[in-house]
Amino acid sequence: MKYELYFEYENKKAEKEAYDKVSNEYESGEIGYYHLPETSKKFKNIEFNTDYNEIVIIGIGGSSLGSKAIFEMTKNKYKTKKIIFLENPDPIDLYAKFKQITKPLFFVISKSGKTIETISIFKKVIKHFNLTKGSKNLKVITDSNSPLEKFATEWNLEIFNIPKNVGGRFSVLSAVGMIPLKAAGIDILQILEGAKNFRDRFFEKKEEHLLKKAAFYARNYKIYPINVLFAYATILNAFKEWYVQLFGESLGKNGKEIMPVGHIGSIDQHSFLQLLMEGMGHKTITFLKIDNFEINLKIPNINLPHLEVTDFVNGRTFEELINKECESTKEALLAKEYPIDEIIMDKLTLENIGELIMYYEILTSAIGGLLEINTYNQPGVEIGKTILRNKF
Amino acid sequence: MKYELYFEYENKKAEKEAYDKVSNEYESGEIGYYHLPETSKKFKNIEFNTDYNEIVIIGIGGSSLGSKAIFEMTKNKYKTKKIIFLENPDPIDLYAKFKQITKPLFFVISKSGKTIETISIFKKVIKHFNLTKGSKNLKVITDSNSPLEKFATEWNLEIFNIPKNVGGRFSVLSAVGMIPLKAAGIDILQILEGAKNFRDRFFEKKEEHLLKKAAFYARNYKIYPINVLFAYATILNAFKEWYVQLFGESLGKNGKEIMPVGHIGSIDQHSFLQLLMEGMGHKTITFLKIDNFEINLKIPNINLPHLEVTDFVNGRTFEELINKECESTKEALLAKEYPIDEIIMDKLTLENIGELIMYYEILTSAIGGLLEINTYNQPGVEIGKTILRNKF
Repeated sequence: MKYELYFEYENKKAEKEAYDKVSNEYESGEIGYYHLPETSKKFKNIEFNTDYNEIVIIGIGGSSLGSKAIFEMTKNKYKTKKIIFLENPDPIDLYAKFKQITKPLFFVISKSGKTIETISIFKKVIKHFNLTKGSKNLKVITDSNSPLEKFATEWNLEIFNIPKNVGGRFSVLSAVGMIPLKAAGIDILQILEGAKNFRDRFFEKKEEHLLKKAAFYARNYKIYPINVLFAYATILNAFKEWYVQLFGESLGKNGKEIMPVGHIGSIDQHSFLQLLMEGMGHKTITFLKIDNFEINLKIPNINLPHLEVTDFVNGRTFEELINKECESTKEALLAKEYPIDEIIMDKLTLENIGELIMYYEILTSAIGGLLEINTYNQPGVEIGKTILRNKF
Repeated sequence: MKYELYFEYENKKAEKEAYDKVSNEYESGEIGYYHLPETSKKFKNIEFNTDYNEIVIIGIGGSSLGSKAIFEMTKNKYKTKKIIFLENPDPIDLYAKFKQITKPLFFVISKSGKTIETISIFKKVIKHFNLTKGSKNLKVITDSNSPLEKFATEWNLEIFNIPKNVGGRFSVLSAVGMIPLKAAGIDILQILEGAKNFRDRFFEKKEEHLLKKAAFYARNYKIYPINVLFAYATILNAFKEWYVQLFGESLGKNGKEIMPVGHIGSIDQHSFLQLLMEGMGHKTITFLKIDNFEINLKIPNINLPHLEVTDFVNGRTFEELINKECESTKEALLAKEYPIDEIIMDKLTLENIGELIMYYEILTSAIGGLLEINTYNQPGVEIGKTILRNKF
């Protein structure tokens, strides 16, 4: 993968500070996600002694966004089982998804083990699909000693734990993401390998672009409180949602924020580009693109009468069109003096996906460290939970 | 439908100015979307003399977002044919969607009649599905005299026109949205009726909340340059994309903006809420919810050992849970003094969908009028198109 920064910024002191903080989190073992490329390797040979047509994940937020991101990126290229996500306690959505389930392998995923949406949906699933103690097609992923783990022990269910020091939004490379993806047929070792390689290169100071970007974002958050991720592929849609959670929950606190906004190119050139071109600015923009889509789909060399104005792309591939759109939009926005950077995946491989995840996680840690906030908690969401409980 | 404002603001002068501007656009006939509830009625009896299993829309931006929003909102409740959207020139996405097409009715939709993504995909469709002059399962929706219309005339294709004074992002109630939705089996008259009723009530000054909100947004755009739409239902996902285009392209120009950000509750309470609770503020927030989901799905009265902490919702409906989550989040954010408003659909009916669309369109016009920008153009996107052409 390649990482290009299209802005000038020199602040070696901030870069060093970010590196030292991230380094300390890694080496002290205080923050767990850095170590998942090793600790999750043990899941490589997991097999489930039950026959199933689809994976069903019962989980929300950090328990579903990461596996959804990877599933959407890979499902067209790798032959996997379908994954159905029961996330939202929305009766229309639940009803529609229940009808798609034929022979399921269920994963109930909750770090705290008491997420109200997840457990409520789980209860409905128990009743609807007649799940009982010892059900072979029901697995649980949660923190050790959580209420959900205690329940699962009593029900004789297979349990996978999330390391205590791995937060929900940083947990995709833990059992949370790796177990269901393995069950769907994904070679998780390649994902972990990609993540490990990036992490190692970063700590060997071979990925300096990350520190420079983190320093710029953190030191200029008042001028640029928004980061727009413009991802050029439809299958990056769920990835941008994952990114929004990662940045949003990590970097919005203590009156500071870097607000994440995700867009898909070229679709959103027809939606959001106008505002970027002529609005108020105050945003950094990150382009994410796939160099080689590995599908040689060509725009036919057809001359349609009166539509000659579109013939300049005839005979070219769709990959060329979408990637040149990305380039053109980038150039148009560079002329508006936005701080822009670009992440280029040479191909959509599992290793690159692992790298992309680790890149974003370390970037988040580096920015949070420089903002002097606690990147890993989310105290702001507790009040709403208390209000909710009092409404029943 | 109900509209509640949870902020105080008095500016009768601005409200009058907004009303006068919108009124003038409507009565002069200068801006066309206000009149679509009448002019689109003619499509009510349209039938297509061809046998088809699914609708395929070839279009991007304003040519697809509106029909996608309505299709997603209605597909579970109303028995409709599937609609497949060929929007992005992304080879992975196109390849996957081509495989889903069995017996299609194609609509090629482009207001300008020369959108490069759309015509490029159209050429591929022509080749892949052997479309020819006079193909009965190929229809065209475009401006009169556009290159695409001239082509369609030469190919003996059925053509539906978009009124010249209806911009792409305001065109869902024109042929752009109504024809494919009618072909899918939706009773478009009810949508148009809902839109008409809201428009009429607005011009009879019975929907003052809209003017107050527009005045507040426009007069405070420097303090609140962001509007977050928090929509509590998974099926509102495509609607929020439509809203993002409507606000983004209309209200981001001349160095001014009201940046639209769409989120889905309760999923994004686990993603974006932290930043709202403890970040920098500077946002208005709109809640959109459905009072009655019309699906009586209950959380079973099951007591799972060790999970008693979740039993407070036992026996309640999922509708109650998701809507009380919306209430709780609203209350938590009100305590942070955000300017909040709420849009409540009593049910997800076609009339309410029509009303919601007209509400947002008039709101956009009113804000744009007060911001003294041209709400209806999008000059900023042209430069990128020129750069693109020069890359081939």
